[in-house]
Amino acid sequence: MRVEILCTGDEILTGKTTNTNYSHMARRLGEVGLDVIWGTTVGDDRASLLAAFAHAGERADAVIVNGGLGPTVDDLSQEVAAEACGVKLVLSDHWLQRMTESYARRGRVMPANNRKQAMLPDGAEFIDNPIGTACGFAVTIGRARFFFTPGVPREMRRMLDEQVIPRLLKLGGITGVTRLKRFHSFGIGESRADEMLAGIPGLAIDGEIKLGFQAHFPELETKLAARGASEAELAARLAPVEAEVRRRLGNFVVAEDDGSLERAVLEKLKAGGHTLAIGETFTSGAIASRLAPLPGAEAVFRKGVIAADVAADRLRAESGTSHALAVRMELDPGGDRPDFGATVTVQIADSTRSATTGGAMVQRVARLVGGRDWVRTGATELGLDCLRRHLYGLPVDERIDFERR
Amino acid sequence: MRVEILCTGDEILTGKTTNTNYSHMARRLGEVGLDVIWGTTVGDDRASLLAAFAHAGERADAVIVNGGLGPTVDDLSQEVAAEACGVKLVLSDHWLQRMTESYARRGRVMPANNRKQAMLPDGAEFIDNPIGTACGFAVTIGRARFFFTPGVPREMRRMLDEQVIPRLLKLGGITGVTRLKRFHSFGIGESRADEMLAGIPGLAIDGEIKLGFQAHFPELETKLAARGASEAELAARLAPVEAEVRRRLGNFVVAEDDGSLERAVLEKLKAGGHTLAIGETFTSGAIASRLAPLPGAEAVFRKGVIAADVAADRLRAESGTSHALAVRMELDPGGDRPDFGATVTVQIADSTRSATTGGAMVQRVARLVGGRDWVRTGATELGLDCLRRHLYGLPVDERIDFERR
Repeated sequence: MRVEILCTGDEILTGKTTNTNYSHMARRLGEVGLDVIWGTTVGDDRASLLAAFAHAGERADAVIVNGGLGPTVDDLSQEVAAEACGVKLVLSDHWLQRMTESYARRGRVMPANNRKQAMLPDGAEFIDNPIGTACGFAVTIGRARFFFTPGVPREMRRMLDEQVIPRLLKLGGITGVTRLKRFHSFGIGESRADEMLAGIPGLAIDGEIKLGFQAHFPELETKLAARGASEAELAARLAPVEAEVRRRLGNFVVAEDDGSLERAVLEKLKAGGHTLAIGETFTSGAIASRLAPLPGAEAVFRKGVIAADVAADRLRAESGTSHALAVRMELDPGGDRPDFGATVTVQIADSTRSATTGGAMVQRVARLVGGRDWVRTGATELGLDCLRRHLYGLPVDERIDFERR
Repeated sequence: MRVEILCTGDEILTGKTTNTNYSHMARRLGEVGLDVIWGTTVGDDRASLLAAFAHAGERADAVIVNGGLGPTVDDLSQEVAAEACGVKLVLSDHWLQRMTESYARRGRVMPANNRKQAMLPDGAEFIDNPIGTACGFAVTIGRARFFFTPGVPREMRRMLDEQVIPRLLKLGGITGVTRLKRFHSFGIGESRADEMLAGIPGLAIDGEIKLGFQAHFPELETKLAARGASEAELAARLAPVEAEVRRRLGNFVVAEDDGSLERAVLEKLKAGGHTLAIGETFTSGAIASRLAPLPGAEAVFRKGVIAADVAADRLRAESGTSHALAVRMELDPGGDRPDFGATVTVQIADSTRSATTGGAMVQRVARLVGGRDWVRTGATELGLDCLRRHLYGLPVDERIDFERR
């Protein structure tokens, strides 16, 4: 199955909008085992669209077209698709009715130009959009099946997962179910993670269970994608591999799937009935702003202080919280540069532990280098991660890849 | 001049990396009056690259190829360019020497595989890269001139501005100099800004002075791009238009060109010898983290507090600063949703003004709606903007487009 992604629209072509729809679609297809072999971007221009459809119809088995399904005159996807197929546009009574009802439910009358969104190439396969007025459709041009999707990201994402990918898999004769397992880690780079996971049976970049990495600095996402005959068969086959990945990445795993470092910290504090104060210097509120806005944080997070000199024990006592996290930074002198660095001191004060049973105060010092922004982002993550490690009983002073000695 | 941008590399094709190089290149070309008519993305694959070069050589006058100039075997751009031209690769003694010297200056020996980066298609025009080991080059394929650029963003950006754009302009017979003037505003949307600027002579989307907008939520960037025979002629022609745009956007302009809202605030505080404390609730440090890490902020920013109840006058008194900014938020009950909103109260305490001469305490209340993240981002910007307005003597309570009554 050779898949092409064809993005349309002047906003994308001129660079005004960064094409995150493309990267999302390509990643999702890769995760379910479909190969994207070509990407094309053209503007809202009839001749370019026709040429792009013709090229794609020659080299691909399936083409996902994104954008151009809106109600305005510069949205040309249906028209040009009909022209490429040599058919007329016909009104979809079904979609017109759905749009009319949707407007009526919100107490509004459908504007006249929305009618254009119900015009589909004659004979096109209808593809549902449960959350927008741009319906999708599929037609055949050349040797490829073309799937037309809306440019609005949340509509595209849902249509891709629920409608387009199942059709692509069927078209490619790919059966069964897929699953994507994700591990989020802090402290190890991609090449180190790759080494740590070497030799797990079935798990490889091109293996039966497909291994992938994605850096979201300073975190690394490790992804396992697999296909199976059924959910049960897939889960049984993945379970030991997931367990082995979890074991090998060990303390560096901060969260799995939709979880996050800050939520892992918050949940543990909440479960213990604890409260937290945060003191920061050069991170200037970046640590608090990861944790404090989370739903449920109001029961845990009591106070944040940004000042030149913060100490965890004093902050905890003053705030009357059970825990305090303080992250102090000594910056290198001089302006920003690639080797600009800082010495980061992370302190955790914990009134629930006495000095005799593990220390009421934990301290960790690390040197980070890589420019002002890099160092701030790294220190923010390091502070939260030290707190996670402390709360979960893991070593707070384990060396991370980003640290200089 | 029909320009195509051709991006290469598996990381881009598979969506692992979002293609910000494309949007940067397309924007920059648009700003100097060059039209991008097509975008292509292919992986590190010889057949795809050859086909992409052939297609682009048929439809474009100029093609910018990005990526594939690295030292590893999957970097194929030079090889495939030579094949498409029907020539051999030849060693550039000049570039080999430059690389060798560059390594030597850092006390290192050049790795053997870097030699590959000095192999260029026979007869290619050399294009300098002063900050990396991937040199650029230009060849003709079909009817188009192809410019090969490195995938590393900072190397690409510099080569594009210094080397590629001047060549493209020459090729297109476009003479003279260009200038890009930028205004950053907060409080007005794109359509309102467009209305406010209507009718300025020479200024239009397709005008002699090209008007463009780019949303960086919650800010809007208004761009004026123009071309002239000389710097002096261009400056003279732009000056009255710039002044008129500045007048019409008025109090909403927070900064120009490379300036920013937070720097405008910091500069004014610094110039007056003032000091600042910041109190936040649901923005949770996001306001402080915009201001406090700026170079020079240490002389001004004294303390940040994140707590459920903050008041500017008390915070100012406790911190011993001349000024305090407090942003309190009352959130709507319930979970996140598109119509989730908050009532934002911004307070500014200012010890340099007495209550009789303009008030020692300024307060502004606004209702923002649009989901948890939206509301946080909006409140952060609103807080900083109220402080800017207060410091510059502008009305703090001017209504903004994002506000509900």
